[in-house]
Amino acid sequence: MQACDTLLFAEIIVTQDETRSIIHNGGIAITDGTIVCIDAADTVRSQYTSENVMELGSSLLMPGLINSHTHAAMTLLRGAADDLPLMDWLNNHIFPVEQNLKAEQVELGALLACAEMTRYGTTSFTDMYLIEDATYKAVDQSGLRVLGGEALFMFPSPAYPDFDTGIALVRELESKWRNNPRIRQAVMPHAVYTTTPEILTICREVAEELDLPIHIHLAETQTETQACIESFGKRPVEYAHSLGLLSERTTVAHAVDLTDDEITLLAETGTNVAHNPESNMKLASGMAPIEKMLAKGVNITLGTDGAASNNALNMFTEMASCAFLHKVQHLDPTVASAQTVLDMATCNGSRSMRQPDIGSLAVGQQADIIAIDLTQPNLLPMHNPVSQLVYATTGAEVHMSMVAGDILYQNGKYLRIDYPALIEAAKDVAKWVQKKIQKRS
Amino acid sequence: MQACDTLLFAEIIVTQDETRSIIHNGGIAITDGTIVCIDAADTVRSQYTSENVMELGSSLLMPGLINSHTHAAMTLLRGAADDLPLMDWLNNHIFPVEQNLKAEQVELGALLACAEMTRYGTTSFTDMYLIEDATYKAVDQSGLRVLGGEALFMFPSPAYPDFDTGIALVRELESKWRNNPRIRQAVMPHAVYTTTPEILTICREVAEELDLPIHIHLAETQTETQACIESFGKRPVEYAHSLGLLSERTTVAHAVDLTDDEITLLAETGTNVAHNPESNMKLASGMAPIEKMLAKGVNITLGTDGAASNNALNMFTEMASCAFLHKVQHLDPTVASAQTVLDMATCNGSRSMRQPDIGSLAVGQQADIIAIDLTQPNLLPMHNPVSQLVYATTGAEVHMSMVAGDILYQNGKYLRIDYPALIEAAKDVAKWVQKKIQKRS
Repeated sequence: MQACDTLLFAEIIVTQDETRSIIHNGGIAITDGTIVCIDAADTVRSQYTSENVMELGSSLLMPGLINSHTHAAMTLLRGAADDLPLMDWLNNHIFPVEQNLKAEQVELGALLACAEMTRYGTTSFTDMYLIEDATYKAVDQSGLRVLGGEALFMFPSPAYPDFDTGIALVRELESKWRNNPRIRQAVMPHAVYTTTPEILTICREVAEELDLPIHIHLAETQTETQACIESFGKRPVEYAHSLGLLSERTTVAHAVDLTDDEITLLAETGTNVAHNPESNMKLASGMAPIEKMLAKGVNITLGTDGAASNNALNMFTEMASCAFLHKVQHLDPTVASAQTVLDMATCNGSRSMRQPDIGSLAVGQQADIIAIDLTQPNLLPMHNPVSQLVYATTGAEVHMSMVAGDILYQNGKYLRIDYPALIEAAKDVAKWVQKKIQKRS
Repeated sequence: MQACDTLLFAEIIVTQDETRSIIHNGGIAITDGTIVCIDAADTVRSQYTSENVMELGSSLLMPGLINSHTHAAMTLLRGAADDLPLMDWLNNHIFPVEQNLKAEQVELGALLACAEMTRYGTTSFTDMYLIEDATYKAVDQSGLRVLGGEALFMFPSPAYPDFDTGIALVRELESKWRNNPRIRQAVMPHAVYTTTPEILTICREVAEELDLPIHIHLAETQTETQACIESFGKRPVEYAHSLGLLSERTTVAHAVDLTDDEITLLAETGTNVAHNPESNMKLASGMAPIEKMLAKGVNITLGTDGAASNNALNMFTEMASCAFLHKVQHLDPTVASAQTVLDMATCNGSRSMRQPDIGSLAVGQQADIIAIDLTQPNLLPMHNPVSQLVYATTGAEVHMSMVAGDILYQNGKYLRIDYPALIEAAKDVAKWVQKKIQKRS
């Protein structure tokens, strides 16, 4: 018998390992935040002992979900402006708040996002925002994982007065957070319409120099495409490719408005695509051609986008929306199967984050694990675990979230966040946000 | 001071009354299952006393949601078959189970559906199924409201050997349940492709004679339209109208494949439409033209359809899906606003059920009320209650559900259902369902 830090036992384990194996009546042994054994419960019990045994009964264990594109601190703006024409929404509601943000507000909004993601089963996310250092502080406290980046524009942001200072800030953040195992850096030019060819080239060079991922909004709307053609004579994906931006290092968020040639470019370069179905629907951007991308082998991941355009950071409802959208888009119920969509939200996301030790449960993988209560009425009866996860689970059935073996949330309690204080702070910031919006409208 | 049965106090009340008023720091007084006062908390406190005072703190009170189209007992088939071509799904998975159903299985499936709806904030629903008497027994136990009907076909069902016996069963059920204030009857011919003109005519005559609503699947898919044209020389809505079936008495479920003339027909006849966005998406039926219908004044309600094609009976996620779908359908973020969609799920549903005393909170209305926990992270900060309900609430934030002043669910406990026994029964029936499907596949 070997000792380990933690033993988990549950009715079903959806591993998302290479063979997508599902273990009924299974167990997981964890040491130093890593899975050392995952097998039938009897087998695990016969090999491992622990002072910390969690008998989770009628629960389903699975890898924590990976939200591949969000702007965490935009929780501040959740529900502040909906159902508006895009330019009114941006110019009169979103920008007047964002232009005035301070670090403490970003940290608060990001902490609220971390609380929400932890509660609803997301354990890792990719984040682009302003004053990203403040987001890292919130993530560090929450215990989640992030691949983050300061949003880089050709104009000033609340974090820097010009691009040169912005790119220096990227180097500074990389240096500051390098030794944190849960906080990783990417270079994040905001979009082709908010940067220049020079800026995008420098972003690529810095990413290559520091061996960092690249993350950029790309091909989100037809409006973006038209503007890109007018400014640079090329469609967004072609333009990004001409600057060497497409590669396995890069994840492009949205990728809605694509030609077949652009899909081929994304596939041939190994570029990852972060698909954001609910945001694309709510902002009326369009329906991304994910079936064509999957057919050509593009690695498609799933993201919520920010809470101003979703309005939840809930990867369970996002999975359902993804499957629903593409079935009706193609008038074909076989498109976007439950397993395909679950892959987007787990193992595909780990590839996009360049972190292969998350997104599945197997020996040697990080113990990023969530537990789902199978006694909830919407999960009964149990015919097919993957179907239940994608189509029937709201995310609120998550009763335990763990990252690297550390429990972050359990049975209604946060173990690292002072949640009552967060509620009060959210009330205060709401008034500030509303004042900024009213001043502009 | 007047005495009342129950007093409720909460931070926000979304009334859905005629002016869509929202009360901050509000109270509701209830006597004999009816709202006798609803106002600012101080005003209610100054006028009413009760031995039963519920101080709900950071909660939002709203009318219980109305699910305008479902097949409750199909929870038995939740996740049993997904992502399949329609005919494979129906012939090899759904029908082999349904053809063998007995009353006790229908009652079990319906009770599970009632538990799910109660849990996620639905207090009334319209149900069409086989052996509907068994569903009524489950609804009666659960405390919910239903407008139900035996599904009427031109071929035998598990409830009757032929249509004549089927229509006699409708009369029998109407007589049996007439005195139950929460269980109402409708005449429910299944669809135009499973009936004959003679059957539809008799259905209309019986509904008029007994003054019952009519509920029918109509114009769900292009396949249905083609079959209707081939059989009867008319498109489904035109055909139904030619038999006098369209009227304020009638609700048609789905209404996806419509011409402009058919939309005009629905509007001019006052026919109600039960829109089922998630089912229409998952089965790849198409996108209903609800914007055109709303513009012409059609009363649009919202339904989940059954758990085999959704796979949840969750009116909160259904509201979000509805708003998302129609924004992307029209590439216009102003379409299907949060208020429009909340109306579909509340007051519009009451009109379709012909029960004007539900679907809104006002003096004289039934006390069908749900309470939502506003301290959940996905509901913070609070800028706009209606936006939060439609876009950010999963339904799991419901901590109290009440029908006619009776609490059915509170803080994880069902007050009328033996829920642990239901979980065990659901496990047993799952095995039976899987055997029936395997035998056929």
